Amino acid sequence: MATIKDVAKLAGVGLGTASRVINQSGYVSEATRNKVEKAIEQLGYVPNETARAFVSQDSKIVALFLPSIHHAFFSELTYFIEDELDQRGYKMMLCNSSNHIEKELSYINMLKQNKVSGIIGISYNQIEREVDHTMPIVLVDRRIENIPYVSSDNYAGGELALHVLRDAGCKHVAYLGTYSRTLKTEVEKRKQGFEDAAAASDITCTHYIEEDPIVDQTAFLKNFLTHRDTVDGVLAENDLMAYELLQLASEQGIRVPEQLSIIGFDGIQVYAAQQLSTIRQPVESIGRSLVELLIRRINGKTVHPVIHPVTFVKGHTTK
Amino acid sequence: MATIKDVAKLAGVGLGTASRVINQSGYVSEATRNKVEKAIEQLGYVPNETARAFVSQDSKIVALFLPSIHHAFFSELTYFIEDELDQRGYKMMLCNSSNHIEKELSYINMLKQNKVSGIIGISYNQIEREVDHTMPIVLVDRRIENIPYVSSDNYAGGELALHVLRDAGCKHVAYLGTYSRTLKTEVEKRKQGFEDAAAASDITCTHYIEEDPIVDQTAFLKNFLTHRDTVDGVLAENDLMAYELLQLASEQGIRVPEQLSIIGFDGIQVYAAQQLSTIRQPVESIGRSLVELLIRRINGKTVHPVIHPVTFVKGHTTK
Repeated sequence: MATIKDVAKLAGVGLGTASRVINQSGYVSEATRNKVEKAIEQLGYVPNETARAFVSQDSKIVALFLPSIHHAFFSELTYFIEDELDQRGYKMMLCNSSNHIEKELSYINMLKQNKVSGIIGISYNQIEREVDHTMPIVLVDRRIENIPYVSSDNYAGGELALHVLRDAGCKHVAYLGTYSRTLKTEVEKRKQGFEDAAAASDITCTHYIEEDPIVDQTAFLKNFLTHRDTVDGVLAENDLMAYELLQLASEQGIRVPEQLSIIGFDGIQVYAAQQLSTIRQPVESIGRSLVELLIRRINGKTVHPVIHPVTFVKGHTTK
Repeated sequence: MATIKDVAKLAGVGLGTASRVINQSGYVSEATRNKVEKAIEQLGYVPNETARAFVSQDSKIVALFLPSIHHAFFSELTYFIEDELDQRGYKMMLCNSSNHIEKELSYINMLKQNKVSGIIGISYNQIEREVDHTMPIVLVDRRIENIPYVSSDNYAGGELALHVLRDAGCKHVAYLGTYSRTLKTEVEKRKQGFEDAAAASDITCTHYIEEDPIVDQTAFLKNFLTHRDTVDGVLAENDLMAYELLQLASEQGIRVPEQLSIIGFDGIQVYAAQQLSTIRQPVESIGRSLVELLIRRINGKTVHPVIHPVTFVKGHTTK
C-alpha cells in the first residue's frame, strides 16, 4: 500500500508539503497541489490512513471487536479492557462481529476517518487486506503480518496440560478442539504444544477436532465419548467444552478423574467455582496489556507482541 | 427543571426565537437575545438538554451502562442490544459502571452535549438527580420516576416458582437472595411474588437474604444449608446462586431434587446446558425492546414501559 513518502517522492516534493495537501492545511501553490494530487491518484493512495501520523486527531474512542460476548472468557476480557481504557481517558465501542465482516469494515473505515482512535481486535474474519501496520490496531490470539498482538503462551499451555496428565499416569491422551481452514489462530498452538510434549514423553496422543465453529458441541462430545476407546486423559480447547464433557461423562457413568482426566483451557471464573482443572490464561493482564500496546500505537510508537505465561489450576477433574 | 417553554414565556418571545438563541442558529436581534439569555440565567436553564428536541443532532451512538459484564445474563443482554443497535445504524459504547457513579455521570454529560444519542442503563447507582424524563434514557430492572424501563415480569416469576415447588410437593420453601437499602429494584419483586403465592397456598416460606452485593456467596450459601432445617424447596435470586447452591448441596450429600428442589432465575445459556430448573427471562426480547424504546425516545416520541413474560424451564433440580 502506498505511503505518504511514495506520494512525496513521485510528486517531487517534501513530506511536509505532501502532508499539507493531504490534510488541506497551510499554504501550497496550485501547481504543487496539482502534482501531489496527481501522485495520490496514480498511486491509489488513501489519504486519511497515514495522515494520522501527521495530524493529531485522537477521538479518545477505541473499538473492540469480539466474536461473541457469550463466551465468558471474552466477557471477562471486555471488562478489563474497558476498565483500563477508562482509566486512560478512552471510551470503548463494542462490536460483536462474529461472521459479520461488514461490521468490522465499518469500524476500520471509522479508524481511517479518525472517528475512532484505535481498534482492539478479536477477529475471526479475513480482514488482512483492509488493515496495515500504520494503523493503531492490536490483535488478540490472531496473527496478521506486522500487526502487533497479545496472547497467552498457548504452546506452553498445551505442553503443561500434557505434563499434568502424564504425571497423573495417563497413557492415552486426546486433544479435543477445532481447526480453521482459512485462518492461522493462536488456539491451534495448544494442540501443537500438547502433541509435541506427548511425542517427547512417549504417550499415545490422538486428536479429535472439527472445523470451527462446531455446530453441535453436544453431539461432537458424545461422539468422542462413544469412540474414546482407551483414552484416559483429555485437553479440551476451552473450559466450556471441558465442562460439557464432564457433564456428559458423568451422565454416562464415566468416573472423572478415575477413568478420565479432563483439563480445560481459559480459567474463567464461572468454571473455576466449579472446580474444573484448567490451564488459566491471565485475562486481566491480557486485557490491560492490549490497551497499553494500543495507546502506544495511537501515539505513533513502535510496539512488540506480548505473550503472557499460563498456569495450571488444579480442580477435581484431574488426579 | 426549567424547559425551553419556560424560557420563552419569561422572555416574552416565541418558542422558535428561544430555540434560535439557544442553538445559536438563525437571526435574532441583540435586544431579544439579551432577554432570552437573561431568562435562561434566571431559570437556571441548561441549554443542551432540551435543545435536543429542536436540533436534530443524533450522533448515532448509544451508551450502555452495565453493573458487570461478568454476569452471563448481562453479557447475553449486551449481545442482543448491540445487534439490534447495529441493525438500526447505531454504535454502542460500553460502560462497566459498577460502583463508579462518576463514570455514569460522564456519559450523562455526553448525552447533554449530544455526543451520545441515548443511554440504556442497568444502573445500581443513585443517578436520580442527574436524569429527567426529557432525556433519551431507558432503564432495565430499575425504576426512576418518569424514566421508561423494560423488565421481565419478576413478580409473576416468583409466583411461578412457588407454584412449581408446591406442585412438586414442597412443604417449606425459602427465597435466597439480596436486598438493597438505597434502591428500589425489580429483583425484589421475585421475592414478593414468591412470598405472596406461598401465603395464598398455605406453604411455609422463609427468606434468607443479605445486602447486595453479597461479599462471600459461598459462605452465605453454606450457612443457609447448615440452618436449612426443614426447607425442601428453594428459589434463588439468579442462576449463578442456584448453581453454586446445587454444587454445595451435592458436596454435602444432600440429594437434589429428592431432598431439596432448586429453582434459579435468568435462564442463561451456560446454565441451561447444565440442566438447572429456572425461571427464564426472555433476554433477546428484553434487549431488542430496550433499543426499540430508546430509539423512539431519541426521536422525541413518548413510550411506555414494557414488561416481558417469563417461563419455567424444567431441568434436573426439580421433581
